[in-house]
Amino acid sequence: MEYLEPFNSYIDMENWKLEPEGEGIIRKLSDMDDMYYDQEAAKESLEEDPIIYEFYTVKVPETASNLLHCISTINPGKIGDEYFMTKGHFHEVEDTAEIYLTLSGEGQMVMETPEGEASVIEMKKGSISYIPPYWAHRTVNTGDKPLVFFAVYRGDAGHDYGSIEEKSMAKIVVEEGGEVSIKDNPNY
Amino acid sequence: MEYLEPFNSYIDMENWKLEPEGEGIIRKLSDMDDMYYDQEAAKESLEEDPIIYEFYTVKVPETASNLLHCISTINPGKIGDEYFMTKGHFHEVEDTAEIYLTLSGEGQMVMETPEGEASVIEMKKGSISYIPPYWAHRTVNTGDKPLVFFAVYRGDAGHDYGSIEEKSMAKIVVEEGGEVSIKDNPNY
Repeated sequence: MEYLEPFNSYIDMENWKLEPEGEGIIRKLSDMDDMYYDQEAAKESLEEDPIIYEFYTVKVPETASNLLHCISTINPGKIGDEYFMTKGHFHEVEDTAEIYLTLSGEGQMVMETPEGEASVIEMKKGSISYIPPYWAHRTVNTGDKPLVFFAVYRGDAGHDYGSIEEKSMAKIVVEEGGEVSIKDNPNY
Repeated sequence: MEYLEPFNSYIDMENWKLEPEGEGIIRKLSDMDDMYYDQEAAKESLEEDPIIYEFYTVKVPETASNLLHCISTINPGKIGDEYFMTKGHFHEVEDTAEIYLTLSGEGQMVMETPEGEASVIEMKKGSISYIPPYWAHRTVNTGDKPLVFFAVYRGDAGHDYGSIEEKSMAKIVVEEGGEVSIKDNPNY
């Protein structure tokens, strides 16, 4: 029988780079500008088109036997009063969990079920956030430094951005009077 | 449909405790003394019966949809010239991977296939060790501080200690002339 060989990757704990780099994806505002609730603010920020987040995935076979894992960095910033965030997704294989271990920074994990029940939990250095099977998940950087986390999920889980690209998510995370505030999304 | 609710656990990055504590297992030398190759040294150390390692697991359903995860701490020390180590195990569902993210300390991950092919890779702060499906795995603390790591595996993977309890593993990790040395196990 042929076995996959064991191997190491490394997280540089100073600058949060993955070595070897893995498969990288960089998302700019223009990749997701229609997901922010304040469309006027989004249009204005498009001129600068900031990098919102990037993630680097260690390549393993995309099967139920394997575990995909990645390092994600969400930059600090806001579109209007809404904090920088990831696109958010369900898993294609809906019945699969995910784990986020936060390595640096502060944020919120915004989740919802296919029926639109919402849950929001905090992320901070050392938090292990458990996203149970079926929940869509989006991460939001509410701090003034990059939010960095290590994520693990089943190799065959896949990403389903479809429904969230259409209507975004039920809850938004905004700054209100200098505080982090979780509100209903007026466009949902 | 009933969904499992999202939740956080926390790793205290100062003393490496899990909060809430989770399901803890503590292994003393007397739980595994016959696994060390130098049985005379093991017998001597049994008087003191040191804690070799402990791990705390976050409780989630033990199904293929979920991801079990734990914080493990291996104490520094040696039995004769062989470093403190975990018992080592295969997964009961053999075709399932595991990931170890090292948070502190230095060590070696000793692995082998069911046919006895061996692989040993280093562990250090920031290393992400990928244990592919089918490989038995044991961790060894080769440093003078606790070796601490975060581990993730499929909820249904299970632990099969049987064959390793019988014959230990093909490779041993010992101190030789002040250096870490990987050798064939004379008792294997």
